[in-house]
Amino acid sequence: MTRERLSLYDTTLRDGQQTQGVQFSTDEKRQIASALDALGVDYIEGGWPGANPTDSAFFDAAPDTQARLTAFGMTKRAGMSAENDDVLAAVLNAGTKSVCIVGKAHDFHVKTALGITLEENTDNIAKSIAHLVAQGREALFDAEHFFDGYKANPDYALTTIRAAFDAGARWIVLCDTNGGTLPAELAEITRAVIEAGIPGDRLGIHTHDDTENAVACSLAAVDAGVRQIQGTLNGLGERCGNANLTTLIPILLLKEPYASRYEIGVTHDALRGLTRTSRMLDEILNRVPMKQAGFVGSSAFAHKAGLHASAIAKDPSTYEHIDPALVGNARIIPMSNQAGQSNLRKRLSDAGLAVEKGDPALGRILEVVKDREAQGYAYDTAQASFELLARDVMGQLPQLFEVERYRVTVERRRNAEGRMVSLSEAVVVVEVDGEKRLSVSESLDEDGADRGPVNALSKALVKDLGKYSSLLDDMRLVDFKVRITQGGTEATTRVIIDSEDGQGRRWSTVGVSANILDASFEALLDAIRWKLIRDRAQ
Amino acid sequence: MTRERLSLYDTTLRDGQQTQGVQFSTDEKRQIASALDALGVDYIEGGWPGANPTDSAFFDAAPDTQARLTAFGMTKRAGMSAENDDVLAAVLNAGTKSVCIVGKAHDFHVKTALGITLEENTDNIAKSIAHLVAQGREALFDAEHFFDGYKANPDYALTTIRAAFDAGARWIVLCDTNGGTLPAELAEITRAVIEAGIPGDRLGIHTHDDTENAVACSLAAVDAGVRQIQGTLNGLGERCGNANLTTLIPILLLKEPYASRYEIGVTHDALRGLTRTSRMLDEILNRVPMKQAGFVGSSAFAHKAGLHASAIAKDPSTYEHIDPALVGNARIIPMSNQAGQSNLRKRLSDAGLAVEKGDPALGRILEVVKDREAQGYAYDTAQASFELLARDVMGQLPQLFEVERYRVTVERRRNAEGRMVSLSEAVVVVEVDGEKRLSVSESLDEDGADRGPVNALSKALVKDLGKYSSLLDDMRLVDFKVRITQGGTEATTRVIIDSEDGQGRRWSTVGVSANILDASFEALLDAIRWKLIRDRAQ
Repeated sequence: MTRERLSLYDTTLRDGQQTQGVQFSTDEKRQIASALDALGVDYIEGGWPGANPTDSAFFDAAPDTQARLTAFGMTKRAGMSAENDDVLAAVLNAGTKSVCIVGKAHDFHVKTALGITLEENTDNIAKSIAHLVAQGREALFDAEHFFDGYKANPDYALTTIRAAFDAGARWIVLCDTNGGTLPAELAEITRAVIEAGIPGDRLGIHTHDDTENAVACSLAAVDAGVRQIQGTLNGLGERCGNANLTTLIPILLLKEPYASRYEIGVTHDALRGLTRTSRMLDEILNRVPMKQAGFVGSSAFAHKAGLHASAIAKDPSTYEHIDPALVGNARIIPMSNQAGQSNLRKRLSDAGLAVEKGDPALGRILEVVKDREAQGYAYDTAQASFELLARDVMGQLPQLFEVERYRVTVERRRNAEGRMVSLSEAVVVVEVDGEKRLSVSESLDEDGADRGPVNALSKALVKDLGKYSSLLDDMRLVDFKVRITQGGTEATTRVIIDSEDGQGRRWSTVGVSANILDASFEALLDAIRWKLIRDRAQ
Repeated sequence: MTRERLSLYDTTLRDGQQTQGVQFSTDEKRQIASALDALGVDYIEGGWPGANPTDSAFFDAAPDTQARLTAFGMTKRAGMSAENDDVLAAVLNAGTKSVCIVGKAHDFHVKTALGITLEENTDNIAKSIAHLVAQGREALFDAEHFFDGYKANPDYALTTIRAAFDAGARWIVLCDTNGGTLPAELAEITRAVIEAGIPGDRLGIHTHDDTENAVACSLAAVDAGVRQIQGTLNGLGERCGNANLTTLIPILLLKEPYASRYEIGVTHDALRGLTRTSRMLDEILNRVPMKQAGFVGSSAFAHKAGLHASAIAKDPSTYEHIDPALVGNARIIPMSNQAGQSNLRKRLSDAGLAVEKGDPALGRILEVVKDREAQGYAYDTAQASFELLARDVMGQLPQLFEVERYRVTVERRRNAEGRMVSLSEAVVVVEVDGEKRLSVSESLDEDGADRGPVNALSKALVKDLGKYSSLLDDMRLVDFKVRITQGGTEATTRVIIDSEDGQGRRWSTVGVSANILDASFEALLDAIRWKLIRDRAQ
């Protein structure tokens, strides 16, 4: 049986950016676009060129993707031709093969928000789509408020999408813009659209999660006949978010009747990167990943109930609807019971530390981990720091060097030209092989820009570690994350540092303190120690 | 037309407690039970008496509720009578009028997890329910894994629930224990159960959110005929959580066809307490409330897109599926680089800055906002910094004082007892009314603990601002958030500071720099300036 093709249209970079508090940089947009492309979506909506500078910059240096990069905009305004509308021109100037424009399908909005006649609106839609097609672009039409519009005035709602269809739009996307339509009604209206003559393989669905039904509505629309789903990674988006592609993709690939009926651009191999992709996005947003997220959440395969945990030990399918490995996620059995200890042993052996079953060190490590996690440490992320902690508890942590003291000075003052400038200076004193070494560095980079006190401190620390210095030549700090784990005036800071070396290794370390420099220093020290222990062991 | 009664069964205190990281105290259970009762649910499942001490203690001093307090347990074990099963006896001893027991409906689990024959399992169900009924209790039967069981062996799954039904169970609850069943299939199986002779008004539904379909599945089951919904507040629960009653309740009360067809125990008046109840639960759990939660999330009625915001100003129904006040929530028009001018004018007038439509200052402010947001500033959150920026652009920012320079020193060294300790010292030089003032502070709090360089800097800054100092006496920093807006070694830091004063005002300010101390200092300065301008204006 041949499976029908479903098209996946991602709008993380456009509607996803409507999430309160979310503002991607151009560089972050590039990163996300590459991740989406690796996943295998069909369309990547990159933003609204002309409407905001990062969107324009993104299209100016658009990444090369398999997926169709799509610019978003709106139908031409009344009283001017499509050719003369500068807003529409800016969208076309982005030069994408596909262009998606939004227009009104609800008579109430045409009158209230636009203040034009229903005929003018229909004409704007038809002319805009026709203009895109004349320019050789693939045109998509987002029919805004389609479902509310259909409920209020079915004839007019159908007229608007028929105008887009007749003008040559490849996809007519039915949008539940306000997120208030429930699955059964949404399916009924979608069927009515198909009966009215717009074929399902020309229809898309765009839903919002205001009633927690965005995923269900998308599936209901597919059941009714649409063949494109619009959504976002991690369900980002205006208000409660858009339909969550991170959930829809594994449903379509793994669950029936979808897996047998439809084909999507995401492979089973790419699906194994899903959890990583979801976490990467949270990383970019500096959000704590949602533990209870379907498929990719860290609790999605956590079995807390005692009866569940013991059944899982016999057969995981007893309490798991899919194998977590299929989406790159992992099972969690709380540390408190027997199964938890075998998990810990697995982590230790991953780090090259073989520990026998029942070794009392396991209990001691668990205790230290719990204690430190209560202080704000996060060993899920910082595997390298976890390894050092375990070595320490087991008496296997070599004392390579010792930090005697450090001092950092940050000054901000007016320079000779009267501009306020900042400069940090760090002095670090270490003892290596009984010999004291003093190093000093400042915070200016090669271009003379101030990179702040953590930068000065990190440079001074690695500057002279005696016989170890040469081993650190190929190491570099690639990421630095700060989170306040306890709010208010007693704020505790957690710093996570990602490091990389010339052998392509990448490792994460953690530091926690009320003092952000101390927290950073602790994470830096762990990063260096881990690298030195690994290299010496070779 | 008379509306049919739907029963709401809350299991926050039992299945909700299976959430990773959640462990209620007895007192917290009482608080939550009272809140649920005030909301108007029909059943409150309080826990499993005998299985864990807080659950037993909760039933020992059970709160007096309108809702039926229900004890949870499992069917009697094979090889003993219901009367002699001590686990079941402990459940009955809680003395609740209603008792819910879980039993297996999936042949695979009977064999794998229980290791008994299918007949023994059916007999355990029948005898257990009969025992509850004989004791004068209202009996509920949770048919565990019912949907997976039906798919594997429909006859046996039906046999188990018929056994419970024939033995006198008031409610037979069909459980999608692993959360893997999608709405359409769940509805189909539910209809088959009703056709097989178990009436819909004796059936309940219990779903999990592993595919983000728990709410949709509950609605699909009601559509198919069931008349009880089991769920939890805020969708707490094992793995990805249970069906979210905080979402289902407003759907059932406000959305069609449910509002016309069914009656529930929750009144419209109680519904206005929904957001408060949801936040209270997060407060108890010490969780940050989920912004994007449907109905009750702080972003649920936040309108970030400029086009949306301007339409909302004309008529809120343009982009809201319900009036937020109905669930005790509120509308938010955030300031952001997506914001249109109408959004901006509303923000300015909230800040007491009246600007006429079409004033060229609006365009200039938007430009500065866009420019600074591209650098990493976030004016969505930092309304006070936004106000200062707008005042500056409009030439309405009084120059209260000027910072000439500052210097912060952070030292870490071994103290007299050989322990590593840190100490920061800050010097700030300001000019007020042409007079230079030098202040110095260190980072130790009243208990002698180091609070870090930001603390020292903030103390030195407010220490002596001349005539303004007395105005700052009642101001305090209540929250401090840091995020890296650009990763890697070129990290840019954004600091958001929340401040409060004696008049109960709370305001947020932002600072951005590669240097975390500079970023903090900038946010601090804004916090002080905003407070001084407000107080002088009075």
